[in-house]
Amino acid sequence: MYINGKTIFFNSQPVVIGSAGVVGKKEGEGPLRNNFDAIFEDTTMGQESFELAESAMLHDAIIRALTNAKRSPADVDFAMTGDLLDQCVGSCFALKDLQIPFVGMYGACSTMALTLANCAMLVDGGAKCCVGGASSHFCSSERQFRFPLEYGGQRPPTAQWTVTGAGAAVVEQQSEENREDSIRITAVHIGKITDLGIKDANNMGAAMAPAAARTISEFMEDTNTNTEDYDLILTGDLGYTGTELLHELLEIEYSKNIQSIHGDCGLMIFDLKKQDVNSGGSGCGCSASVLCSHIMKKMKAGDLHKVLFVATGALMSPTTTKQGQAIPGIAHAVLLER
Amino acid sequence: MYINGKTIFFNSQPVVIGSAGVVGKKEGEGPLRNNFDAIFEDTTMGQESFELAESAMLHDAIIRALTNAKRSPADVDFAMTGDLLDQCVGSCFALKDLQIPFVGMYGACSTMALTLANCAMLVDGGAKCCVGGASSHFCSSERQFRFPLEYGGQRPPTAQWTVTGAGAAVVEQQSEENREDSIRITAVHIGKITDLGIKDANNMGAAMAPAAARTISEFMEDTNTNTEDYDLILTGDLGYTGTELLHELLEIEYSKNIQSIHGDCGLMIFDLKKQDVNSGGSGCGCSASVLCSHIMKKMKAGDLHKVLFVATGALMSPTTTKQGQAIPGIAHAVLLER
Repeated sequence: MYINGKTIFFNSQPVVIGSAGVVGKKEGEGPLRNNFDAIFEDTTMGQESFELAESAMLHDAIIRALTNAKRSPADVDFAMTGDLLDQCVGSCFALKDLQIPFVGMYGACSTMALTLANCAMLVDGGAKCCVGGASSHFCSSERQFRFPLEYGGQRPPTAQWTVTGAGAAVVEQQSEENREDSIRITAVHIGKITDLGIKDANNMGAAMAPAAARTISEFMEDTNTNTEDYDLILTGDLGYTGTELLHELLEIEYSKNIQSIHGDCGLMIFDLKKQDVNSGGSGCGCSASVLCSHIMKKMKAGDLHKVLFVATGALMSPTTTKQGQAIPGIAHAVLLER
Repeated sequence: MYINGKTIFFNSQPVVIGSAGVVGKKEGEGPLRNNFDAIFEDTTMGQESFELAESAMLHDAIIRALTNAKRSPADVDFAMTGDLLDQCVGSCFALKDLQIPFVGMYGACSTMALTLANCAMLVDGGAKCCVGGASSHFCSSERQFRFPLEYGGQRPPTAQWTVTGAGAAVVEQQSEENREDSIRITAVHIGKITDLGIKDANNMGAAMAPAAARTISEFMEDTNTNTEDYDLILTGDLGYTGTELLHELLEIEYSKNIQSIHGDCGLMIFDLKKQDVNSGGSGCGCSASVLCSHIMKKMKAGDLHKVLFVATGALMSPTTTKQGQAIPGIAHAVLLER
């Protein structure tokens, strides 16, 4: 790899040879219902706890992605995954029995972009096969970050609905002749933490939008590209509020307008008018499941050729929020081309 | 890089060009007191909370490591750090103002080896400069994982004392002629999760020892080496109980005896007879501070030439423990040569 500004370009062009996105019942009733690789009606996944259910979902996504790529766990050099649970136990228990060398990662809701970017860097560096992935679960997140489910607290309009879902992608090197039809990762950008002092834990979109604006703008500068060079700029889970802010920030601070080609996984996964999710979907599983199923399928079908995937994360914990700290944001980007 | 078995070897031999380990008051009264780069008498670091104090300590270790390497934050391509706090906020708030592209990692107490290994892989892949690091703080850990500090609960003999400390190392490529005197990273090994069903959250040593035994044994096989090929095999924080178990497991399961050259950071950082730490030190900050100050200094002075650093992590959260889950372990290895 070589670096221009803060964007990383590859000598080998790693390719996504397989992927899968799986979700729970509510997500399976949304606009993307026909695109997921699996919809689980029982979101407990037959497990004893919501935390284990989340692990089971990530495990399932990894196995489906590997199957889709015609690979087995033994073929994988590194699995890089993460989630929102304390001490990343969602990933730890998902990977426990797969016996793949495990790199735990934490990027809050930006995790899918973070793991995919790192998979690409390691594959470019010489690894044969890497798996990236992320998960979230409404029930495990809600009780960890907010209130017991039974409490039934009111949610402000800016609040988002944590997606129950997981996604995984298998990244490999591919010889030049096979590359034409493949989904190639041509550049990645690891974000810097951006903190504009947002303190409202019920408004993650506002906390993450400044990081997204910065990463998109820096990526375009480093690659000398404009809005018209992309088919889609796909943010992770800014939701309705965060999306409005992103458009505003890009125009005012960076003189950029991406509205014509911008999509947000948090707005795509639910029907905001009918599904009572306030500002949209959130959680690592949101962008992971949408990217690894819906978007990858569209790219494979030739409907999308150049997608800049920019997942954002809000770097907070219940403890930092209770202590009155601001919520720093981060955004990582992965450029996918076919 | 190229991979033999599950061990990664480098084409470029990344070098550690600078490092620093900083600790709190109690650690500064232990056997290694003359080797740390800083000892903080006030472990609140002048911050409002123990969590922010931990971040301040990691921030300090990173700045000292960069200064030691004659680099500034702007020179760094990636900072890869992690800690034990929920949602890795120790790292997030430590990196917040440094404006370095940030890769959050989670490996529990194995984090220093995980970040150092990934720094080496990215530098070998083409990154110019990476920083790896990890932190822990007795007060932030204790209240998160166990009880409020004021409670003063009894601790069983197998329990360990979370180290207040942080370490960071700067990894770069170096041209062949300058390499002779440098501390080179010649191989790394990313561990697989190993779960023998240990459920006692007050006996981390037992949960982590099987992973350490497996990683050491697989590393020796992949590199075709034996005990006598190393000056030191340095485990992270197995403590007294875990060390006994490691020796036993290596002998019984793998027919290996490393006792003559084995050291454990958890046993080195405290005086077990005088400092009332039961089975020894623990926490990511334990191996991070010991490796990045004491061990690096010994290597620079020529007292140690070949050190296999094997940090172990217990992959649990208070939630998984309360839910009766076992504690899976993991161990990552980094081979340092001079």
